[in-house]
Amino acid sequence: MKRSERLVDMTKYLMERPHTLISLPFFAKRYDAAKSSISEDLAILKHTLASNQDGILETVAGAAGGVRYIPYLGKKHAENYLTDLSSRIEDPNRILPGGFVYLSDILGNTQDLRRIGELIATRYAYSDVDAVMTVETKGIALAQAVARYLDVPFVIARKRSKVTEGATVSVNYISSSLDRVSKMELPTRALKKDSNVLIVDDFMKGGGTLTGMEGLVKEFDSKIVGICVLCEADFDKDKLVEDYLSLVKISKIDTNKRIILSEPGNFLNRTDFSRF
Amino acid sequence: MKRSERLVDMTKYLMERPHTLISLPFFAKRYDAAKSSISEDLAILKHTLASNQDGILETVAGAAGGVRYIPYLGKKHAENYLTDLSSRIEDPNRILPGGFVYLSDILGNTQDLRRIGELIATRYAYSDVDAVMTVETKGIALAQAVARYLDVPFVIARKRSKVTEGATVSVNYISSSLDRVSKMELPTRALKKDSNVLIVDDFMKGGGTLTGMEGLVKEFDSKIVGICVLCEADFDKDKLVEDYLSLVKISKIDTNKRIILSEPGNFLNRTDFSRF
Repeated sequence: MKRSERLVDMTKYLMERPHTLISLPFFAKRYDAAKSSISEDLAILKHTLASNQDGILETVAGAAGGVRYIPYLGKKHAENYLTDLSSRIEDPNRILPGGFVYLSDILGNTQDLRRIGELIATRYAYSDVDAVMTVETKGIALAQAVARYLDVPFVIARKRSKVTEGATVSVNYISSSLDRVSKMELPTRALKKDSNVLIVDDFMKGGGTLTGMEGLVKEFDSKIVGICVLCEADFDKDKLVEDYLSLVKISKIDTNKRIILSEPGNFLNRTDFSRF
Repeated sequence: MKRSERLVDMTKYLMERPHTLISLPFFAKRYDAAKSSISEDLAILKHTLASNQDGILETVAGAAGGVRYIPYLGKKHAENYLTDLSSRIEDPNRILPGGFVYLSDILGNTQDLRRIGELIATRYAYSDVDAVMTVETKGIALAQAVARYLDVPFVIARKRSKVTEGATVSVNYISSSLDRVSKMELPTRALKKDSNVLIVDDFMKGGGTLTGMEGLVKEFDSKIVGICVLCEADFDKDKLVEDYLSLVKISKIDTNKRIILSEPGNFLNRTDFSRF
């Protein structure tokens, strides 16, 4: 196979398997090519990704070595996307009664989810995440998008017991927007003990739901690697969780005057983009 | 930029934007290259995808023309994957009380979702789908995976009203496994009138939930392009929907003897893979 064809197939193959180590002999066999040619191909791939700042090709030396494609975006991409997203969120038609914000269009848009998934996966690319956790319903799209770029499973905590999940572990938490004690649960077989868990959710007001997930992670004897939300309501001052990242911060909602103000959240300043 | 680098970037760019028409002048400008060189690049890409039977590069001629990457898998890929998936589903540990089957691991595995999404997107690649619809909770992962490869939005019907969705349209349906009338709803702004809707769900027993979604599509003056489920319980003979595809068919569950039998569903025979 010619170099040009190898490069097309190799790019597709690696992009479909982020964070997965592929050995050089595998590619050499797949293309019936010398290892030295494969190395040259990979150098081109690495260089191209680096010049666009939209991915890292990592080389692992030694007998058990190979290459690994790490979805990773440069700071400029992050700034551009989050600035655009914030301004789209400032649409007053998104304001719902009770100070809620309609985001289902963004959470159902696959191009937005790709960008959001890549961004969060950039932040946690080197955090040894074993699983992404969210709670139903709207966090699911987010968890799936992030998990895809980290190549780890995602697990969904549920607010009601379901017969299709088998045995579960449940925790109680204070739902701050409803101001009452709620319950969420996760199937016992969904998560291994000693996992490193990344918690994600679509929207954070008081953070009550996030404390529920923190509780679940503890019940599974696991560790929280990070907490990241798509949208944070910054005007809700009393947060129940301390250490979290938000991609977008909504600083004001005026239901009467139909004003919603939004800007990029603390994600930008708290992410290290220096690997480029 | 050299051809080799262009090919890497072009492959990545097109794969990230399935079903989207990209003009040749766009690529010519992006790479500062002649249109004739770009055409040659695209021919290489097209040829490589076709030989692997894992994608189609479609050329649209004329002034408003360009190229479009269509995720599309050959029959061999479909057979291999669905045979493997069926055998994994035959694990007796999946059997839950009441004849339910644990599938959350598959629905939380991003590599499975990629394959499943590509397969369903292959079947409906030329059906002018405007939106993918599912009902919470476990169908969401599936809807998102399919929507990603068709590059259309996905919408989620909900079983309970939520304050974060705004106005909704609701329908009643007979939930066959619970044998009672249930309700599901969709935000009015989630779907435009006259849309072509592809309905997907994770599991079908009697098909009651699917009739609910059929009802919703009608309420939005829209058309059903197809109904596709991941898993069909074939031993539940009375189906409330007639025309549906299933990727996997579970023909038997014996809770006492701990036996579950599964095979590829009617998807294989009812999909036209002849574009290769």
